[in-house]
Amino acid sequence: MSDPGSPDQPVRVVVIGADAAGMSAAHQALRTAASRGRHLRVTALERTERTSYSACGLPYLIAGEVAGADALVARTPAEHRAAGIDLRTGVLATGVDLDVRRVHAVGPDGGSLVVEYDELVLATGATPRIPSWAQADGGLVPGVAPVKTLDDGPAWDALLQEATADADRRGELVRAVIVGAGYIGVEMAEALLARDCEVHLLAPGGVLPGFEDPVRERMGAVLAASGVRVHAGRRADGLRRRADGRVAAVRAVDLELPADVVVLATGVQPRSALEIRGGSLPTGDLGAFAPDERQRLAPHVWAAGDCATVEHRLLRRRVFLPLGTHANKQGRVLGENLGGGAARSAGALGTAITRFRAGGHHLEVARTGLGEADARDAGFEPVALLTEGTTISGYLPAAPSAAVWVLADARSRRLLGVQIAGGEGAAKRIDTAAAVLWAEGSVDDLAQLDLAYAPPFATVWDVVQIAARRLADRI
Amino acid sequence: MSDPGSPDQPVRVVVIGADAAGMSAAHQALRTAASRGRHLRVTALERTERTSYSACGLPYLIAGEVAGADALVARTPAEHRAAGIDLRTGVLATGVDLDVRRVHAVGPDGGSLVVEYDELVLATGATPRIPSWAQADGGLVPGVAPVKTLDDGPAWDALLQEATADADRRGELVRAVIVGAGYIGVEMAEALLARDCEVHLLAPGGVLPGFEDPVRERMGAVLAASGVRVHAGRRADGLRRRADGRVAAVRAVDLELPADVVVLATGVQPRSALEIRGGSLPTGDLGAFAPDERQRLAPHVWAAGDCATVEHRLLRRRVFLPLGTHANKQGRVLGENLGGGAARSAGALGTAITRFRAGGHHLEVARTGLGEADARDAGFEPVALLTEGTTISGYLPAAPSAAVWVLADARSRRLLGVQIAGGEGAAKRIDTAAAVLWAEGSVDDLAQLDLAYAPPFATVWDVVQIAARRLADRI
Repeated sequence: MSDPGSPDQPVRVVVIGADAAGMSAAHQALRTAASRGRHLRVTALERTERTSYSACGLPYLIAGEVAGADALVARTPAEHRAAGIDLRTGVLATGVDLDVRRVHAVGPDGGSLVVEYDELVLATGATPRIPSWAQADGGLVPGVAPVKTLDDGPAWDALLQEATADADRRGELVRAVIVGAGYIGVEMAEALLARDCEVHLLAPGGVLPGFEDPVRERMGAVLAASGVRVHAGRRADGLRRRADGRVAAVRAVDLELPADVVVLATGVQPRSALEIRGGSLPTGDLGAFAPDERQRLAPHVWAAGDCATVEHRLLRRRVFLPLGTHANKQGRVLGENLGGGAARSAGALGTAITRFRAGGHHLEVARTGLGEADARDAGFEPVALLTEGTTISGYLPAAPSAAVWVLADARSRRLLGVQIAGGEGAAKRIDTAAAVLWAEGSVDDLAQLDLAYAPPFATVWDVVQIAARRLADRI
Repeated sequence: MSDPGSPDQPVRVVVIGADAAGMSAAHQALRTAASRGRHLRVTALERTERTSYSACGLPYLIAGEVAGADALVARTPAEHRAAGIDLRTGVLATGVDLDVRRVHAVGPDGGSLVVEYDELVLATGATPRIPSWAQADGGLVPGVAPVKTLDDGPAWDALLQEATADADRRGELVRAVIVGAGYIGVEMAEALLARDCEVHLLAPGGVLPGFEDPVRERMGAVLAASGVRVHAGRRADGLRRRADGRVAAVRAVDLELPADVVVLATGVQPRSALEIRGGSLPTGDLGAFAPDERQRLAPHVWAAGDCATVEHRLLRRRVFLPLGTHANKQGRVLGENLGGGAARSAGALGTAITRFRAGGHHLEVARTGLGEADARDAGFEPVALLTEGTTISGYLPAAPSAAVWVLADARSRRLLGVQIAGGEGAAKRIDTAAAVLWAEGSVDDLAQLDLAYAPPFATVWDVVQIAARRLADRI
């Protein structure tokens, strides 16, 4: 009998989920194995017909900024197959037998399938949270949809075309209600304004609940100034339907908002509901798989991406942070380990960014590290300060404004978090703060850094540095 | 007798030079002293009538993008005086007696002046290098000028108006020759194109000599595509003059370029030529003052800004890096120490940025850390790689391109330098690399950072990370 990994006996890798994490893992595993003379045979089971696409691009696709859904695809099924991966689309994995190393699945024809593995990769992603009031007859109420999978893009396009034709007949605008005011909610508000809708945004926890008040207030003001009706503190709890079954209105306790279309932007949860037999797999926040820093979950089982937790470098614990950046990074680490290498995931800082742009308004927001409450809960003694400045020299025409919120620990002076709200060019400055957080730097480090200055790019002390310096002076 | 610093006996601080470094020092000294109950009396001697302005803004002023020269002034003489500084403009300091603590100067009326000090701040700045061939009759040949002081702004405006009137009569464009192709040379090429000149750029060491080839080539190509005639390898060595004495042409060995106006962009040198008596002051590169990390030069003597060296954090030695960012930072540290605090200058990385924009072309360039030759000279084992990508998701319309050059040490994997050339939004990404260099991070740190991603802001792996990752894979 030959060794596992030899040409005669390739290691049988089965990947469940053929999006960012799974396919990053698969390709990296093949590359690493090849460089080490190891042999792998990779089978990927994907429940849809789509692979490796940018879900983050969906709002821009729906807005009409992207040529078409295919443009969001980084690698097609054919490309994965050409790279040597046995990709099986339309296959829904339903369970895993850990002791005999078998995956149970339902094939495209509805028949059941069993796939044996030597190493299993769980990369099942996340799934939108669908409120019960949005469901009827085993599906979603017509006119109501999330924004998560690639096929949601063309579906939204069709829905909006139909609703626009209806509204045109009435001589009105399409009435769109967005349920949830996080990243997707805000991005869809931009997209639906671009599609000439009248946009209502239900924001039960206010706009951008993951941000601090100065950022939230600025986003709320720009949304309102652009004509978005923000309903803060309102939680949707029901629908009214038309005679034909389509949505007619969204209810939020005593408020009823007429609606031709409803966006569900109520967050996601890990898709980790496989039936596990012959053992158990460690899980964390929201039931997400909780792998170790090598992305290993259990003997012969690995996990990466939106179905898995990620180590938060400041909190020093694993959290659920379903973002494409982490999925790609974790997938790569997983693949390297699977291919015979030794890689470790370096963790995350909670960095995120988005924008809202409509009718001459442009607000960018970004965050990295902790918010004030999280920092206090984690045992820090946080001190925060907000500073207003401009992204470029104030004497140049239309220098965009930037508000920078900085959080540091009063005892150690360690930088804990930065949030930014501002005009064009403001938000990507968050990366500088993220790099300081990465190295566990202090608020003084951020204030003293040698950053790039020329009048069209920054003020002589960059606004992020001014903000850090002002806070440093107060600690 | 009372203590120095008491209300009866304030410490007499004399500052020579009332621009960024000197005035940052003066104001910070007053703030720090006030917070500690110390009393200072600050006198500032300034040879011009201008204070605290953005010399970096001059090309944009000349281009017509800034409302006027006054817009470049951060703080006027009146504002300094209102803050309690005894500012004396039109006073040229000529010498210092270290043993008796006296500054010798020439006043506005030409009379000599002696000013006593307890603590002396040298913030005399830098002065353009003026080639001997550009001089005549004790001044510059008419039509030839540098771009350094605030008054150079209106002077250039007048010169260009006059030259344009002349050229209009001839039915031609103004012929401008820029001598030197560093930052100022490139920025003035943009400004003079904006003023409808025919622009020739003499680049003896090629375009942007402080950058690596991939950046230089891209800038050379964009300059040429925008109609700038780049004369690489050509060193100006003489002028031809008209009968009325004005410049008629610039000579570079066997080349003669007709010229209505000539920009001297041949670099600067520290203005450190005071006559020092009663001791000596330490100097470094190009004769710049070489203070310690507290900005202290000698007992009771301090120095900051473009007249002084700055500690290079990677080279671990003091270098001449005349930039406004360092002047401001050093001035602040100096002032804090002078006011009774204890601050240290954290040093520099050689971060710099500029752009060239004309006729639909837009190229941004930036650098931080070491070039390959400098790194080798410093004892590192440098490995470099160039990576091309885009600043935002490629499926969005007109995603700007970005070329990122990364340098790391093959032995330690330490990041040594990054350079970027690209479209809108590319160059300021250098700050992320600067933050990693600041913390002495590795090329792996830069590759793994948790940076901000959303389609309108970045690719899912930011182009800077892709570049770092690709180099990391090769070491």
